[in-house]
Amino acid sequence: MSAGIVGGGIIGLAIAFELLERGVTDITVYDPDPARGAGLVAAGMLAPTAEANFGEEALQELMTASMRRWPGFAARVEARTGQALGYRTEGTLLVALTGDDQAEIDRLVGYYRRAGAPIEPLTGRELREREPLLSPRVRGGAFAPGDHQVDPRLLLRALRTLPVRFAAEKIEDLAAVPHELTIVATGASAAGLTGLPVRPVKGQLLRLRGPEPLLTRVVRGVANGRHVYLVPRADGELVVGATEEERGEDRTVTAGGVLDLLRPAADLLPGVAELALAETLAGLRPGTPDNAPVLGRLPGGRALVAIGHHRNGVLLAPVTAEAIADLATRGSTGVNLDAFGPTRFT
Amino acid sequence: MSAGIVGGGIIGLAIAFELLERGVTDITVYDPDPARGAGLVAAGMLAPTAEANFGEEALQELMTASMRRWPGFAARVEARTGQALGYRTEGTLLVALTGDDQAEIDRLVGYYRRAGAPIEPLTGRELREREPLLSPRVRGGAFAPGDHQVDPRLLLRALRTLPVRFAAEKIEDLAAVPHELTIVATGASAAGLTGLPVRPVKGQLLRLRGPEPLLTRVVRGVANGRHVYLVPRADGELVVGATEEERGEDRTVTAGGVLDLLRPAADLLPGVAELALAETLAGLRPGTPDNAPVLGRLPGGRALVAIGHHRNGVLLAPVTAEAIADLATRGSTGVNLDAFGPTRFT
Repeated sequence: MSAGIVGGGIIGLAIAFELLERGVTDITVYDPDPARGAGLVAAGMLAPTAEANFGEEALQELMTASMRRWPGFAARVEARTGQALGYRTEGTLLVALTGDDQAEIDRLVGYYRRAGAPIEPLTGRELREREPLLSPRVRGGAFAPGDHQVDPRLLLRALRTLPVRFAAEKIEDLAAVPHELTIVATGASAAGLTGLPVRPVKGQLLRLRGPEPLLTRVVRGVANGRHVYLVPRADGELVVGATEEERGEDRTVTAGGVLDLLRPAADLLPGVAELALAETLAGLRPGTPDNAPVLGRLPGGRALVAIGHHRNGVLLAPVTAEAIADLATRGSTGVNLDAFGPTRFT
Repeated sequence: MSAGIVGGGIIGLAIAFELLERGVTDITVYDPDPARGAGLVAAGMLAPTAEANFGEEALQELMTASMRRWPGFAARVEARTGQALGYRTEGTLLVALTGDDQAEIDRLVGYYRRAGAPIEPLTGRELREREPLLSPRVRGGAFAPGDHQVDPRLLLRALRTLPVRFAAEKIEDLAAVPHELTIVATGASAAGLTGLPVRPVKGQLLRLRGPEPLLTRVVRGVANGRHVYLVPRADGELVVGATEEERGEDRTVTAGGVLDLLRPAADLLPGVAELALAETLAGLRPGTPDNAPVLGRLPGGRALVAIGHHRNGVLLAPVTAEAIADLATRGSTGVNLDAFGPTRFT
């Protein structure tokens, strides 16, 4: 079978990986700039409960299903590519600066509990015992031992080495893709190609750098109502993310975006002020009207689609790739895609 | 006469200009990276009163003397180089966000008055009538019609075209400079060469960019105790400066520096948040124990020195260049340098 994957971001490349795993070897990935999608501005937090909102049960189930697949997916990608993905399992801290912020964390803690995910409330002092450089003003929070982490840049770098053909073409019409099987994974730019209501949701992200890590774990924080995540890497880099802005195709790094990230980061972790501002980035996440991805076969066509992963592309990559590769190779999948069909918006 | 100028920043190049004006044509400027000194992180505000602190009367007089020279200096540089310097004379606004910030502005207003410089207190409403995009929270301020502005990048670009020899050498020993006349203008790195107590004072500065200017005039603001200046350029660029940090030879752009600039900028001018963060810069100003420059002849040597201009290098360039060129060509100057001699620290 010959497969054409339109879009070479994390989702498209993860699908290529699962097709290779199933013995499909004739794969072409169409992307003018592969491995440069929304994954570049992702932090790589694998936290199915912390990211879920109320009333999104089907999405929550899909996240949990993907979370379970992550360790095996990471091991298989590392085995096939020979590259490390920075997969880490030490859990995440939820941190609140003020009393009002604590209420937001309490809401999340309740959600972990209802989802049956492990969560351990901590006082400010207990948080500082685990992460001594957190601000003395930090009011409280929680430890989520089940939340994991991967480095999206390493994941993209590894997937970029897969033995597939990369074609630097921008596909404007699916009928022009000359393969038995066509898969659309174009992220935020999928609307024109598929007619699906996908819109770009801008995210800005900072990379700070210091001589050594300020944190041992990922911190998901709320400071004066502003949400931020702080992702330490072993080499002293600290990823600070990410804004969520409805601005169309705009990829500009703005003063306001940088301020919205630096302010809560420095409030929660004052040592941030000393770090070098190494890089500022903006990317476009693919948003849908119900915040859930679109997974399945486009009506009337031979094309499969896997788009609209919004903030959850890294987390959802394994289950998405498995389901789409199942559909491509045997026409059905054990993954429950009922809530994610391409016709649900019509 | 053959002249060697060690240091190709604004001060060294302004001296080269005045030597050329006096008919000295054999000039070599030694700098591994000319036109890349502290001037690059200067905003180019020519505000002799606003920058002066209490108890620095001699420095204040030198500033006023240089301010008087600026229009003629700019005209002569533009005539000789054929390049515009962005010299503007529309005055500066002083702006306070809170009541406490207003007290700081009142202190500055009193200082303008005692210095005999024109200053007109304004209410928040009057400020917004002049600059409608200032925050509705702005409490009050003043208009300083005598404060002017130049674009330091254009000044450096113009001076860089002067018909002098540029030698990309780092001078380690003044005895090795093979000229009848040696002039040291090495800014923050002068200590090793001269034995003078010059230290680097780090400054960080941002360049933001939008479709059109948010301001018509330079704003010197105080917001929650944080000082900032906002310098609009005609092309939509807004320069936001500048931090003042004692960190040795460190030229790192830090998260804390960027935050210290963006926070008061966005507090005073909310539209800042929408601007693109086009560039972040850090440079080293040459500081001295008394915040005043060192101007004159090094003891026992044939070298003249013009260093230690701290935050005031752009403002003080004309009077510095005139005095040093006077000393070089006729052994004396009408500029009163009594307070600025190289021996005052011994």
